[in-house]
Amino acid sequence: MSFKDDVLLVYLPSPAPPAFLDSVGQKFPNLTVRWIETPVEHGMLLPPDHLTPEQWHGVTLMCIYHVPRPELIPNVRFFQTASAGTDAWMKHPKYLDPDVIFANASGCQPPQIAEWVIGTYLSHEHHFHIYADQQKQELWRPRLELPVQVSTGRRMGILGYGGIGRQCARLGQALGMEIYAYTLRPRLTPDSRRDATYCVPGTGDPDGLMPSKWFSGSSRAAVDHFLAQDLDLLVVALPLSDATRALLGPEQFRILSRNRNKTFVTNIARGAIIDDAALIHALETGLVRGAAIDVAEPEPLPKGNPLWKAPNLFITPHVAWQSTRYWENLSDLLLRNLEKLASGQTVINMEKKR
Amino acid sequence: MSFKDDVLLVYLPSPAPPAFLDSVGQKFPNLTVRWIETPVEHGMLLPPDHLTPEQWHGVTLMCIYHVPRPELIPNVRFFQTASAGTDAWMKHPKYLDPDVIFANASGCQPPQIAEWVIGTYLSHEHHFHIYADQQKQELWRPRLELPVQVSTGRRMGILGYGGIGRQCARLGQALGMEIYAYTLRPRLTPDSRRDATYCVPGTGDPDGLMPSKWFSGSSRAAVDHFLAQDLDLLVVALPLSDATRALLGPEQFRILSRNRNKTFVTNIARGAIIDDAALIHALETGLVRGAAIDVAEPEPLPKGNPLWKAPNLFITPHVAWQSTRYWENLSDLLLRNLEKLASGQTVINMEKKR
Repeated sequence: MSFKDDVLLVYLPSPAPPAFLDSVGQKFPNLTVRWIETPVEHGMLLPPDHLTPEQWHGVTLMCIYHVPRPELIPNVRFFQTASAGTDAWMKHPKYLDPDVIFANASGCQPPQIAEWVIGTYLSHEHHFHIYADQQKQELWRPRLELPVQVSTGRRMGILGYGGIGRQCARLGQALGMEIYAYTLRPRLTPDSRRDATYCVPGTGDPDGLMPSKWFSGSSRAAVDHFLAQDLDLLVVALPLSDATRALLGPEQFRILSRNRNKTFVTNIARGAIIDDAALIHALETGLVRGAAIDVAEPEPLPKGNPLWKAPNLFITPHVAWQSTRYWENLSDLLLRNLEKLASGQTVINMEKKR
Repeated sequence: MSFKDDVLLVYLPSPAPPAFLDSVGQKFPNLTVRWIETPVEHGMLLPPDHLTPEQWHGVTLMCIYHVPRPELIPNVRFFQTASAGTDAWMKHPKYLDPDVIFANASGCQPPQIAEWVIGTYLSHEHHFHIYADQQKQELWRPRLELPVQVSTGRRMGILGYGGIGRQCARLGQALGMEIYAYTLRPRLTPDSRRDATYCVPGTGDPDGLMPSKWFSGSSRAAVDHFLAQDLDLLVVALPLSDATRALLGPEQFRILSRNRNKTFVTNIARGAIIDDAALIHALETGLVRGAAIDVAEPEPLPKGNPLWKAPNLFITPHVAWQSTRYWENLSDLLLRNLEKLASGQTVINMEKKR
């Protein structure tokens, strides 16, 4: 397929990366590309309401964050969405059309989220917040009484071994940690350990080679068994579902408290996966060494919520996904999917529609 | 050699790691080991003045932080020092004796120092200090107007590619960065790129495989050429000498300011390598993106020094070397050196005496 009758409309809040335009020009010289930069006002991406009929005309391939009205896109047969979730599309006639291919943006965010996980962990272990406060007081005072637990020989447990967990594993391994992975279904064969989701080149663990031990199961007992593995750092990277709601409650923090060096708990998934009261109690009584969360229930977390004052807890307001390279990653994924389409292969991150 | 007439005295502020005692017991059943835990008072390690004549008697091998009086150690033929530098030994008759072997503790600190480098860098790029301040105000406010520069596709330049630089390289590579290394002497062959210094297993880059480009030279012009390589993160990991004093001055910050995304500068070496006034000016006028320093000139940095208030600068009081595993690393090095001695090989980290 040469795309000679195709028009690709890209509507993203970033100029076209020159590398993308070069590659598309070389590989698909017949493809018409309309890259239109999304205007941003007060931090909000404006929808494509201002596009002219000429700009919509003939579009067959699309890469977009918003959900356009169906009448504007009668001929589109492939959508590369700009978000990992496609909830907003669920009832759209294009999404319901079995002949239209949707690819989501999973895998464009793991590098920055894994940086957040390791950065908050190291900040805690190296007492950066204490030194930042001392700096404000112009106080040079080494706090040798505060032990610094270095990562070599420590163990990272990753609850949910998808794209984010896999880049956390890569960073943990470089730090000298042992990696334990937990997945819903057992991963007994090399093939089952692979992840075909998009992965930013040079990152992650697409072949599933980094964990020294794999755990699995859908029961709470299976999760509890994983939590008891002397984990030094626990990364919660599971989707929220009825099965994972309040997965970490009082009993799970008691299990964690028996780990040799106590566990540092990180949540970059969804706030509701952790029972707040149990987390606060665990922090106040030293059942865990500390925690970092980028998610809360509800969001925004209101003033006065007791999480704000829990000791050894670092909170950020759901920003770990942010990065200046997100659109570059997405355009790399888009390019790969154009190649898949051209050669009649299944696209990367294809949505399995119901 | 079976060490049957030998006595090893270890005097360190930590109990003997069981793994060390097991290995020594298996490999050298005839060796007498006296592991005496150094008492610590007010954060100071007490010298071995309280040891009895029986404890000193017959000692031939020693692992220690302090410098004992010569008359206590007439028969010692091997010293494993507990610090990387051996300045305190320079005039000691044992050190001057060409038949006595000294091994220093280089390589026991890189994991924690590299964690400090990456942790402070990620803290800056992900705006953790801003979010920590917001947390104190119980304020959930995503700062999407502040760009987050993720590491994938960025470039780390390491000025001084020793043990610390090599573990920074490992972490940077896992983050998706390209590594450029600078050394005093050219490293044109695979062999010249190796570093035989002790390296904590699973860390660092002992074979020198991680840099995609090597730079070298003893002139300021050579350093300036390196600084101009579009570095996103510059790690200063050089020893202080007449050649490196004030190596980064006004002209060097001007060179850095021409790098595409501006450079983040990290100093874990010695404060005097950077000209403070030039650094402060660079931070105030945006010639660099930010900086983190664990060292200053002088130390302790006095209240009122303008460094304390420089924007986008994070200061810690010479603590990056700290870690709970330091003594374990040292005992691993000691074990390897006992093996070297037993087989008549050159010990690791042998001091080349003048």
